[in-house]
Amino acid sequence: MKFGSRRLRPFCASCPLTPLSAPLSLLAASYTDSSDDETSPRDKQQKNSKGNGDFCIKNIKQADFGRREIEIAEQEMPALMALRKRAQGEKPLAGAKVVGCTHITAQTAVLMETLTALGAQCRWAACNIYSTQNEVAAALAEGGFSVFAWKGESEDDFWWCIDRCVNLEGWQPNMILDDGGDLTHWIYKKYPNMFKKIKGIVEESVTGVHRLYQLSKAGKLCVPAMNVNDSVTKQKFDNLYCCRESILDGLKRTTDVMFGGKQVVVCGYGEVGKGCCAALKAMGSIVYVTEIDPICALQACMDGFRLVKLNEVIRQVDIVITCTGNKNVVVREYLDRMKNGCIVCNMGHSNTEIDVASLRTPELTWERVRSQVDHVIWPDGKRIVLLAEGRLLNLSCSTVPTFVLSITATTQALALIELYNAPEGRYKQDVYLLPKKMDEYVASLHLPTFDAHLTELSDEQAKYLGLNKNGPFKPNYYR
Amino acid sequence: MKFGSRRLRPFCASCPLTPLSAPLSLLAASYTDSSDDETSPRDKQQKNSKGNGDFCIKNIKQADFGRREIEIAEQEMPALMALRKRAQGEKPLAGAKVVGCTHITAQTAVLMETLTALGAQCRWAACNIYSTQNEVAAALAEGGFSVFAWKGESEDDFWWCIDRCVNLEGWQPNMILDDGGDLTHWIYKKYPNMFKKIKGIVEESVTGVHRLYQLSKAGKLCVPAMNVNDSVTKQKFDNLYCCRESILDGLKRTTDVMFGGKQVVVCGYGEVGKGCCAALKAMGSIVYVTEIDPICALQACMDGFRLVKLNEVIRQVDIVITCTGNKNVVVREYLDRMKNGCIVCNMGHSNTEIDVASLRTPELTWERVRSQVDHVIWPDGKRIVLLAEGRLLNLSCSTVPTFVLSITATTQALALIELYNAPEGRYKQDVYLLPKKMDEYVASLHLPTFDAHLTELSDEQAKYLGLNKNGPFKPNYYR
Amino acid sequence: MKFGSRRLRPFCASCPLTPLSAPLSLLAASYTDSSDDETSPRDKQQKNSKGNGDFCIKNIKQADFGRREIEIAEQEMPALMALRKRAQGEKPLAGAKVVGCTHITAQTAVLMETLTALGAQCRWAACNIYSTQNEVAAALAEGGFSVFAWKGESEDDFWWCIDRCVNLEGWQPNMILDDGGDLTHWIYKKYPNMFKKIKGIVEESVTGVHRLYQLSKAGKLCVPAMNVNDSVTKQKFDNLYCCRESILDGLKRTTDVMFGGKQVVVCGYGEVGKGCCAALKAMGSIVYVTEIDPICALQACMDGFRLVKLNEVIRQVDIVITCTGNKNVVVREYLDRMKNGCIVCNMGHSNTEIDVASLRTPELTWERVRSQVDHVIWPDGKRIVLLAEGRLLNLSCSTVPTFVLSITATTQALALIELYNAPEGRYKQDVYLLPKKMDEYVASLHLPTFDAHLTELSDEQAKYLGLNKNGPFKPNYYR
Amino acid sequence: MKFGSRRLRPFCASCPLTPLSAPLSLLAASYTDSSDDETSPRDKQQKNSKGNGDFCIKNIKQADFGRREIEIAEQEMPALMALRKRAQGEKPLAGAKVVGCTHITAQTAVLMETLTALGAQCRWAACNIYSTQNEVAAALAEGGFSVFAWKGESEDDFWWCIDRCVNLEGWQPNMILDDGGDLTHWIYKKYPNMFKKIKGIVEESVTGVHRLYQLSKAGKLCVPAMNVNDSVTKQKFDNLYCCRESILDGLKRTTDVMFGGKQVVVCGYGEVGKGCCAALKAMGSIVYVTEIDPICALQACMDGFRLVKLNEVIRQVDIVITCTGNKNVVVREYLDRMKNGCIVCNMGHSNTEIDVASLRTPELTWERVRSQVDHVIWPDGKRIVLLAEGRLLNLSCSTVPTFVLSITATTQALALIELYNAPEGRYKQDVYLLPKKMDEYVASLHLPTFDAHLTELSDEQAKYLGLNKNGPFKPNYYR
Repeated sequence: MKFGSRRLRPFCASCPLTPLSAPLSLLAASYTDSSDDETSPRDKQQKNSKGNGDFCIKNIKQADFGRREIEIAEQEMPALMALRKRAQGEKPLAGAKVVGCTHITAQTAVLMETLTALGAQCRWAACNIYSTQNEVAAALAEGGFSVFAWKGESEDDFWWCIDRCVNLEGWQPNMILDDGGDLTHWIYKKYPNMFKKIKGIVEESVTGVHRLYQLSKAGKLCVPAMNVNDSVTKQKFDNLYCCRESILDGLKRTTDVMFGGKQVVVCGYGEVGKGCCAALKAMGSIVYVTEIDPICALQACMDGFRLVKLNEVIRQVDIVITCTGNKNVVVREYLDRMKNGCIVCNMGHSNTEIDVASLRTPELTWERVRSQVDHVIWPDGKRIVLLAEGRLLNLSCSTVPTFVLSITATTQALALIELYNAPEGRYKQDVYLLPKKMDEYVASLHLPTFDAHLTELSDEQAKYLGLNKNGPFKPNYYR
Repeated sequence: MKFGSRRLRPFCASCPLTPLSAPLSLLAASYTDSSDDETSPRDKQQKNSKGNGDFCIKNIKQADFGRREIEIAEQEMPALMALRKRAQGEKPLAGAKVVGCTHITAQTAVLMETLTALGAQCRWAACNIYSTQNEVAAALAEGGFSVFAWKGESEDDFWWCIDRCVNLEGWQPNMILDDGGDLTHWIYKKYPNMFKKIKGIVEESVTGVHRLYQLSKAGKLCVPAMNVNDSVTKQKFDNLYCCRESILDGLKRTTDVMFGGKQVVVCGYGEVGKGCCAALKAMGSIVYVTEIDPICALQACMDGFRLVKLNEVIRQVDIVITCTGNKNVVVREYLDRMKNGCIVCNMGHSNTEIDVASLRTPELTWERVRSQVDHVIWPDGKRIVLLAEGRLLNLSCSTVPTFVLSITATTQALALIELYNAPEGRYKQDVYLLPKKMDEYVASLHLPTFDAHLTELSDEQAKYLGLNKNGPFKPNYYR
Repeated sequence: MKFGSRRLRPFCASCPLTPLSAPLSLLAASYTDSSDDETSPRDKQQKNSKGNGDFCIKNIKQADFGRREIEIAEQEMPALMALRKRAQGEKPLAGAKVVGCTHITAQTAVLMETLTALGAQCRWAACNIYSTQNEVAAALAEGGFSVFAWKGESEDDFWWCIDRCVNLEGWQPNMILDDGGDLTHWIYKKYPNMFKKIKGIVEESVTGVHRLYQLSKAGKLCVPAMNVNDSVTKQKFDNLYCCRESILDGLKRTTDVMFGGKQVVVCGYGEVGKGCCAALKAMGSIVYVTEIDPICALQACMDGFRLVKLNEVIRQVDIVITCTGNKNVVVREYLDRMKNGCIVCNMGHSNTEIDVASLRTPELTWERVRSQVDHVIWPDGKRIVLLAEGRLLNLSCSTVPTFVLSITATTQALALIELYNAPEGRYKQDVYLLPKKMDEYVASLHLPTFDAHLTELSDEQAKYLGLNKNGPFKPNYYR
Repeated sequence: MKFGSRRLRPFCASCPLTPLSAPLSLLAASYTDSSDDETSPRDKQQKNSKGNGDFCIKNIKQADFGRREIEIAEQEMPALMALRKRAQGEKPLAGAKVVGCTHITAQTAVLMETLTALGAQCRWAACNIYSTQNEVAAALAEGGFSVFAWKGESEDDFWWCIDRCVNLEGWQPNMILDDGGDLTHWIYKKYPNMFKKIKGIVEESVTGVHRLYQLSKAGKLCVPAMNVNDSVTKQKFDNLYCCRESILDGLKRTTDVMFGGKQVVVCGYGEVGKGCCAALKAMGSIVYVTEIDPICALQACMDGFRLVKLNEVIRQVDIVITCTGNKNVVVREYLDRMKNGCIVCNMGHSNTEIDVASLRTPELTWERVRSQVDHVIWPDGKRIVLLAEGRLLNLSCSTVPTFVLSITATTQALALIELYNAPEGRYKQDVYLLPKKMDEYVASLHLPTFDAHLTELSDEQAKYLGLNKNGPFKPNYYR
């Protein structure tokens, strides 16, 4: 079964850093809870200080600590805080019963508490068996949330937690917030009747969105769904701007490599590739690009990168980075020809880009030299430095700034509001992008962070441009 | 009447530089023909060396000189030359009778001769009364083309030339290649019946495309039309990459200003604004941005620019650049507050952005200090340096590289081929973008210029990605 | 005789642009005086409006026009204007009799009038037979200056003008301001006794400084001399910052080349090379560097440039730029191997870097395609685009911003003040650099242009650093 | 006593990362030896496998592991390996008896083994009580080196180790390699007679060099000393290029801050400041600069940074970075006015730049949120994020690439060779910089890492330039 693969993705097993953290976060402290007792949370009797026991987490005693992390995250998520403020008058989610399945982190907690402030009831599970911040889950439980998640769930635990979210006597969800599609899948499989009362699905991940489009194509999507993943703000931030920073961060944390003067080949010149190339060029690397698409190829040329085939430069480069979304971009043949010490890593959206399996042969020796860093050693002594076993470098070996997560979380909140309040007929049983105007609204909520001042159109100008003064300002396809 | 305004746009009156030139061009020499006799070409008896007289130009004796310019342009237009080569076997435009109305330059000549090589017959007029390179027109006439154009036409001449193109006993066009919509307008007005045999219109300009959409909306478009202006290759090249260079060039040629340390405000952060900002930042200017669209505003922030309202910085900046496409962005109130010596110019798509009219008041003195450079002097002695009277700086004061024109010309050629050969029913009476795959083809034809080597998908990879190995590689909306 | 070669350097013959211009300048207008009468100024009876006739220029009637140019230049030379203001109380050059020999331009006029305001008397000639702005010379003459210079002097005129400056009954100069060493040479040769009363020489040019060091070495330097050329402010501005802009400007004005995607090799990675490389990289070119010095070579690597030998890339590059100060860097062998259309130019400090002489052979055809642009055509049709016949691109084909000239002029003024007022014994018969503190003072006078606010050391901090609060802040050798 | 302060600098106490690491290093593994037994090495009987016991380290059993680290470091230190190869014929250090006192790391081990290959005998102690890599010390001891060092020495241990190096019956050092001056100080204090046979001192650190200049000034320096710290290669690499990378790395590892759009003020625009500013600008930060030196200030302007006083921007910036070398640059007054969440760190050369002491007041709460990260909390809840308690961010919170260390180590080796072999009289009892030519040699040995190809002067060119074909190519003061 293909379902379930995402939440079990092994990068978390070997990654003590969760993919989520924040400038003001207290993450370091969370590492210490490895000394916790080993009893399964499912076997424990749990109650919060008010006597409520409708949750299942690791350790309610960590609640204070988790609360501090949430407070710190709040400072970096001004858009959600602004939504809360506006919600003091109106409650756009009054009556909404949201089941959620996402990473359980301080940032998610800020989202959940915002939804509540907007009028919603929430029940939540984790979308990944490793990524839960236990202290945050504790704070949520203490705050009255029905949360079912801990770090290090088994696969059975995983589905049990989802089921506990959904399956409560006398409670029926009417909105789904999903990240990866497992929650949606579970309801489809176990409680298909629930969809009668569900007003819509908000899905964040590539994988989950892909599933929804498949359902839609097959005529099996029975409620409207909002594709948050492809919002322009999310795309640009997660890909171009975020990768511009995380490629440097991921490489430094794992290898301490000096970028100046290094020869690097970046495979793929989409948004991720563009971000990686810009950063490395700025740090003094000499960057080559490979592409299959002539338009992106021409962009690479105009941006000052030599466009090559991988075999033209594979012997001379110091670093190989894949950003294609494709499979078998770096195959054994290329790995054989790399020079000693060459660093190989993946920034694309899956672990298929580097053919890591081809390196698991008897004549090659693997040596784990650091967390996330393997030396693969050829019989002649040549070493290749493989990062994160070919999984995503930025998720495995660097962190995602809260600010980026804030954009996504705000988009999720607005998507919920939109679907929940949309008049009958606005959305059919299909997959939608958030209306352009809401994308713009998300962006506008984040401008104060930069003390950025937007210009307003005069009436005369708006008329000249044929635009509404309040937007949207661009066609939907504008990127 | 609004029609006709574009071809008469005054920037050409004061601009001895045509907007078109080439690295290897002999432009300088063309200035000398101002000593030509003053007889109107319409009053002259003209024949080329083979006795053909179906053309009207300035001076057939300049043909050799024009031929040299064309040969030089050919070197920078490899894609059209490649099309010619492929046309040795097949003639995709066999039977096509193309009437064209564009700038008459060496680059256009390369396009026309390519269309002929592909099997077409061509008759051509100028879309602008000032931009014709007389020696190129001579070379075309000598080569057997029916071309009706000269530098310095009157408005009456302008329409007379267009009419001569279209209205020939025993000849009926079946394709239109237009730049600005005047040719299309003329046929609509004078020879509406011609449209019965016309297979399609290819239109390059913003203005012309706008007219076509209006016709389509009004249900009056009676043939399919191809919008070349909005092709991704054209957009990116004309806007981002070309403006990145021409903002520096235009400012230097007119003012010799040193960029390092200068404070600049760029109004608008679309593609043009992005190009301007990137270039000026790289040259050591301190750049501020204004925006109305929160998404572009957030991009400006992430790219490292302070997002301000114009009034916050107007007193301190050394240079003001408009790139909005809007009107009255820089109004008298702002001009009054600028500091002495402030340079004001426009890179947007019309001459409305700076309210130049507001400066034509008695208390202000205008002083023309160079071609395209005016000092506007306040009663207290303050001088504002206004470039190109607020018209497009890049068209008025810098040149457009042949390479960029090559991309557009190739797109035009492919659009003609597509419309001419499209099976019945593929295109209706509407405005279309060139199919993505053809955009990609245009791009691929320009990669050899950069010695750029594209990677090909393996069968397995194509299958994995769900793509055809030959493209298209991205959805239509991808930018 | 080697002396005299500089003022006659042929780049001026073919260069209608003087090397000097200004954002607010009226240069364009000065081209019109070509219609002036052809009588030699030496043969004319000349008087200004006050009846003074101790000058020799082209046409006193142009004085008003020249005055406007000077006023405009004043706006861009804030440091000299600040010196004038401070001079209202004290006259540090009271009693100074300065003979000068420099380019006669609006910027020089601002310097001369500043020296006068500081108390000096000035007599002036041109250091170059082509670079005099006649209208500026007229304004100076009208203002009472004894100036002897016009555009288009013969060699004989040149020395006659210098002699008229120096050789005046009853007047004996006590300071020399020279640019190129010709004035100094003339006095050495004709009036060696004058040196008895001369307090010092201020020399700006590389050539002139070189001569002074040779005189010093030979024990023949009989007064102290100040080497203005090697001041850190001048070096950095003339080389790094100015060339960063002028390489782009020079290439665009001559060839309209698009930088994006072009492959460029820059020979030499000193300050000039660093400036060129940074600019071209920023514009999207792919830049290769050649170097002889391993330290500069390592800097090129760390800055992200492939360090190559010229023969490794000569076949593939689109542009070749020399910045070495060396000779025969680009020899015929390399020129033979360049690809069709390759652009070749020189940014170094002499015209020896490209072996242009080797291209003057019968089998190659030269074609002048624009001012400063030659096509050299091989028998097989290959064309090389040679700029400025291998002379300095930035002087021949672009302009020098007034701001840069302001730094140099201010340094010259301070050097004069320093030498004139130095107590006996501070300077011997040797060549000196301006004291660091004065360099810093020059820099500080230019900061207001950028609205830049310097931080002051507290007493405690100055003590901690062992510095005087007013500088100098760095050792002399700091760059 | 001021001496000794450096080796005890507390940043090491809280920094589990040594300042030294390498792309291929196994550092992570070394953290595990904390489980080692607690017996003092001084109390243990130690012998290597050959029965040699003239050393004192933590645990000889770690030798194999240390050897692997050394082998890996060798791959990144090509210059030392090249020196070894050349040493197969000649032994320029034959007879040299070197006592060394530096950080004991894999990179130092490569240096020591190179010195041995060149003919020297070495005895070594650590210059810092925390920085010794125990496994490397073990490998050295096993290899026959007399090394006296372990991680976590007491101050008494520290001096005991140094003494054991120096004070050996029948052995008298003739060369000193010092980092910080403690070894030199010890010999001055305890064994002043040893200097009679000592040929020279090579000193790397700012502190140590400062002491030597003081000794020299006081007439107490009794042997020549080589100042390795101020070599151009070291300065440029340690400062400009290395800081360009480590500012990003240090900030990311400690705070995960997103750089895009952040407002940053960098205090000081020397080499370090230039590196920090360039990196942050490239990542999309908006950077302000403060300076006391008008020349550096003007450079900042030309490089595109607003030059401000700290108080003008202190309320609005997100990050404050000091790079001045000065004291009390960021004082309590500024800290009071920073906004919530502002990050404060130091990249300058001491821990005096931020007045951290002023934050140790009762009304402020300190909260350690991660290793090297403190929140300082104001009564109103405002938090400042203070990194490394104001000590050097790049040493405390990021790593130094082996490549940079290689340059320093090679310079040290060449300085030893130069002093040891210099003919009588070349060096007096003074402090010297390494001859320019040797600097160039160090650089040239590192070029192969980048596959960089140096151009050689022809005889004719060398003559023209007045240079020796083999260098030196620039004057000594060239930077």
